[in-house]
Amino acid sequence: MATATEADAMRRAVALAARALGATSPNPVVGCVILDPQGAVLGEGRHRRAGGPHAEVEALAAASAAGHDVRGGTAVVTLEPCNHTGRTGPCSQALIDAGIGRVVFAIADPTGNATGGAAALRAAGVSTEGGLLAHEAATVNMAWLTSVRLGRPFVTWKYAATLDGRSAAADGTSRWITSAASRADVHRLRAEADAVVVGSGTLRADDPHLAVRGQLVEEGEGEGEGEGEGEGAAVQPLRVVVDTHASVKPGARVLDDAAPTLIAVGEDADTGHLPGVDVVRLPRAGAGRGGLDVPALLAELYGRGVRSVLLEGGPALAGSFLAAKAVDRVIGYLAPALLGAGPAALGDAGVGTIARALRLEVTDVARLGPDLRITAFPTTSATASEEN
Amino acid sequence: MATATEADAMRRAVALAARALGATSPNPVVGCVILDPQGAVLGEGRHRRAGGPHAEVEALAAASAAGHDVRGGTAVVTLEPCNHTGRTGPCSQALIDAGIGRVVFAIADPTGNATGGAAALRAAGVSTEGGLLAHEAATVNMAWLTSVRLGRPFVTWKYAATLDGRSAAADGTSRWITSAASRADVHRLRAEADAVVVGSGTLRADDPHLAVRGQLVEEGEGEGEGEGEGEGAAVQPLRVVVDTHASVKPGARVLDDAAPTLIAVGEDADTGHLPGVDVVRLPRAGAGRGGLDVPALLAELYGRGVRSVLLEGGPALAGSFLAAKAVDRVIGYLAPALLGAGPAALGDAGVGTIARALRLEVTDVARLGPDLRITAFPTTSATASEEN
Repeated sequence: MATATEADAMRRAVALAARALGATSPNPVVGCVILDPQGAVLGEGRHRRAGGPHAEVEALAAASAAGHDVRGGTAVVTLEPCNHTGRTGPCSQALIDAGIGRVVFAIADPTGNATGGAAALRAAGVSTEGGLLAHEAATVNMAWLTSVRLGRPFVTWKYAATLDGRSAAADGTSRWITSAASRADVHRLRAEADAVVVGSGTLRADDPHLAVRGQLVEEGEGEGEGEGEGEGAAVQPLRVVVDTHASVKPGARVLDDAAPTLIAVGEDADTGHLPGVDVVRLPRAGAGRGGLDVPALLAELYGRGVRSVLLEGGPALAGSFLAAKAVDRVIGYLAPALLGAGPAALGDAGVGTIARALRLEVTDVARLGPDLRITAFPTTSATASEEN
Repeated sequence: MATATEADAMRRAVALAARALGATSPNPVVGCVILDPQGAVLGEGRHRRAGGPHAEVEALAAASAAGHDVRGGTAVVTLEPCNHTGRTGPCSQALIDAGIGRVVFAIADPTGNATGGAAALRAAGVSTEGGLLAHEAATVNMAWLTSVRLGRPFVTWKYAATLDGRSAAADGTSRWITSAASRADVHRLRAEADAVVVGSGTLRADDPHLAVRGQLVEEGEGEGEGEGEGEGAAVQPLRVVVDTHASVKPGARVLDDAAPTLIAVGEDADTGHLPGVDVVRLPRAGAGRGGLDVPALLAELYGRGVRSVLLEGGPALAGSFLAAKAVDRVIGYLAPALLGAGPAALGDAGVGTIARALRLEVTDVARLGPDLRITAFPTTSATASEEN
């Protein structure tokens, strides 16, 4: 049984992992804390970016740099240590070499190529225990775990609307429906995502920039322990415009060099006005829908290492994703305002009658300034939630 | 200064008042608790219906029926005792005659014809104190106090919608968007209202009944103190259909005898197919809007004793009320579902651009089964809530 001290260390490891959201794909986020046999913290680390040291290696290095002897100590880590040599060596071997006596992890590695770490540790005489705070660790890695399971990126559809479901007024104005607090929260979502996706209509209406301002990965830590190592600029999400007819103009803000950008167009689109722009040609959506094929888009993004997508609209694109069952989480920012006219937050999602409504489960409601943020997940059942 | 015991008694008096919501108009709801000089409860009462005894008189009678001597006691009452002879005698005189030594009330009577109760009590040597738990007492009497201030009924707009603001699917089906828990809560709102208002579109689409099932006034007490006096059926709200062209059919459910019904039509409507139906002819709305003049409708209802209106839609009628600045409270039942098509919960409210959005302040968010209930009040400023 894991001790209370180990549980505390695991909570810390989960918090360390969360700091790296948006920076590690195609890898998961991982945090690690090394304890001595009496439970004192000797070192901690996290996987900061793909290609960089794994969390266990960083934690061992931190302990060593502080002059600690980790032999006989315990490694508490959010994910089962890997057992393969990729861009870095296997963590299981690093832990064995360091003389670690016990490894406590939250969730087993679900991938095919990195499993076996716990077995390798046990074979080397290291005590192992899995499952500690598995729910918390799975939550922080929700996007990566879902992408492993489905073979496509985890998709969060974010929308902002009035209480009557409008995303803009009748004349198209929408600045600002939601409060500064809500917009800052959206910025955090972008920083945690590998890609931000918008449609061409949103591009025409708003000319959004979609890049993340620097340092955002470190935002919200506030633990005051003076890590202060200068994390550098946040990893920018890939900006993706779904633009069937290649209508994006060369001067669009999304095409600047603040972050990488991908324009997804139809196979027959004329892209002569976009020299030097990263363009991918995708098949059109089937079943009488306009736009591009959503699974093909997600496969393209997955192939580029994208494991989490923030879908920012507009209504037609959101409808296409929902119709394709390609939304895993919905985050709605509801402003306490009424418009009575103007574009709806969501367009045609292939729902014609109430029994076919896309049902969700609300898991969180938060107040952000004057607004409400509603987090919800699609339920598996397509039928109404109440029978009477 | 009021004592803690008096504050407890006032909380109880407010709860007693709340039980009578929907039954007392054009009077306020009032609760009263009589304490002996040591703070023991001698009797309690509430104003149950217009024409019935006032709360103070009922409380005195209850104390007397229990064989208690109230002389030198304290009356704790949610509203300043009246000083006029209407359908019942002045409460101030009843308290004086009973030998009450002290009167604590929450809010002063704001009407012209009933004020002076505190002065009359003081003139008779009774100690008086106002303002105890004034906020709580004002909240329970919000509808009545607003109607006194504005000279029209207090209007609550209730809507039910999906997270994307749809009140029905593309084919018009809407049973059920919200859960049984939400629908039961709407039933409570109806029971607390003097009138329930719908438009002719809602009548055609849903053929609603709009009556309140019996006993609802007592629902939700659950204090287990065995009052058990058999309150009788709830007072039915007036069912009001805004039906410019008198399109209601003689067999509509809203025309049955379960509750009174008023059909508001345009001045030129042909109502020959509605013999025996209570019909009022009202001017058309101005400023290019369809439908009837909302202030004229509210004046008509006010003249009939209606002090609180539950506006249940549909979207066009709600838009007309909002455009007329005739909505005092918004209660939205949001189902965790998405439709992407179908009628919006709110139609044209005269808002063309984002700076003119109708801004609200959310005062409460509750979970009702899977749904959210959002309570909000219009803010006085018509400008955006954030400046940046």
